[in-house]
Amino acid sequence: MRDQFHEDLDTITDQLVELTRLAGSAISRATTALLDADVQLAESVIEADKQLDEIRISLDNLSINLLARQQPVATDLRIVVTAMHMSSDLERMGDLARHVAKVARLRTPESAVPPQLRSHILQMGQVAEAIVAKCGSIIASKDVEAAAALDKDDDAMDELHRELFAVLLDEERDLHRTTVLDLALIGRYYERFADHAVSVARRVVYLVTGEYDSEVSYDHEEVEDADVIAEIERNS
Amino acid sequence: MRDQFHEDLDTITDQLVELTRLAGSAISRATTALLDADVQLAESVIEADKQLDEIRISLDNLSINLLARQQPVATDLRIVVTAMHMSSDLERMGDLARHVAKVARLRTPESAVPPQLRSHILQMGQVAEAIVAKCGSIIASKDVEAAAALDKDDDAMDELHRELFAVLLDEERDLHRTTVLDLALIGRYYERFADHAVSVARRVVYLVTGEYDSEVSYDHEEVEDADVIAEIERNS
Repeated sequence: MRDQFHEDLDTITDQLVELTRLAGSAISRATTALLDADVQLAESVIEADKQLDEIRISLDNLSINLLARQQPVATDLRIVVTAMHMSSDLERMGDLARHVAKVARLRTPESAVPPQLRSHILQMGQVAEAIVAKCGSIIASKDVEAAAALDKDDDAMDELHRELFAVLLDEERDLHRTTVLDLALIGRYYERFADHAVSVARRVVYLVTGEYDSEVSYDHEEVEDADVIAEIERNS
Repeated sequence: MRDQFHEDLDTITDQLVELTRLAGSAISRATTALLDADVQLAESVIEADKQLDEIRISLDNLSINLLARQQPVATDLRIVVTAMHMSSDLERMGDLARHVAKVARLRTPESAVPPQLRSHILQMGQVAEAIVAKCGSIIASKDVEAAAALDKDDDAMDELHRELFAVLLDEERDLHRTTVLDLALIGRYYERFADHAVSVARRVVYLVTGEYDSEVSYDHEEVEDADVIAEIERNS
């Protein structure tokens, strides 16, 4: 039989996986709500975000109690500290999905996304969904190689984000001011969603290897908007 | 003579205050670089961000070592855990200042900010500078009342952000597509900067009172873009 301490550690892992599931469901439904201008679906995403917040708080409380009562060291300490960072990233991913849903709700009965950008936003949603699903598997399996491979999905997101900005910056395109602003924000939400997922995966690497290498940033280095814009403008 | 443990705790507090100083300097210089189209100043902000990252890593390492070696409980445990969350917020504030500096650099020799919005962006910079300076005092003094009062500065930032979006959404205004995109992003950077400062202040409250109240979010609830846009559109 496992002791209470290790049962608590398992609970932490389970709750982190549950957070990835909820964040994945949220971004998937937010994307559909956005494209289909589905106000009920948008509302349900906004409402469901509270669940992520609650799990995050309960997870943090459990972590602090574990630190206080059990005073873990070595790997056990790393699991607890890392869990606190990961829950913070995952809660933020839920917030970003909620932001997407709020823009969806704002524009109903229209869709915030004009026809020529629909398939583009759909792709961003699909990459976001895939990346957070992988995140869940990585947390459960502690698969360091899969964690490293997540950078590729993030590159795909960065490229989609770059293409979106290129459309928005193109003065030849007839876009409403509201569309430019809505989509600049939406693009950033998806991009940040993927960045936080990469951060979570990197923390799993830290957990397994125990190396908190000062050369590597455990917060994912985001591709910065200004660099993306600069590249678009050089190429146009 | 204080013991090593309490000296380490003092070091943590000192480093957090130093992070607020660096973030304040960064956002102040980034705003000037943006308004004056000063490429050297922008470069210096981008370069200086590494210092924040380094202090954050050293602070997190110190915290983890403290947890492992000293196994603190009660208030001491809270200080260490809270410090990890605060350093994460403060590093992110440095990132956001760097983002502003990168947009500044991108647009030189022009300013990214058109003449009619200069005083507006200047105000956003000033509020950001004030809020992070107060954050530093609050960390040093553990003044719970001052921490609560920070919400007012954040309200001022929210209002400036709202006014900026109203200008960007006004189709009557003759603005380049690049200006709309640049300023939508810049507005969000300043706004998020203030949000993270409020989070830091709330964590000081947790530190002092010890109440990790599930009713209160310790991550500051940001005013969401879609809600801001909805309000602007209702009023226009």
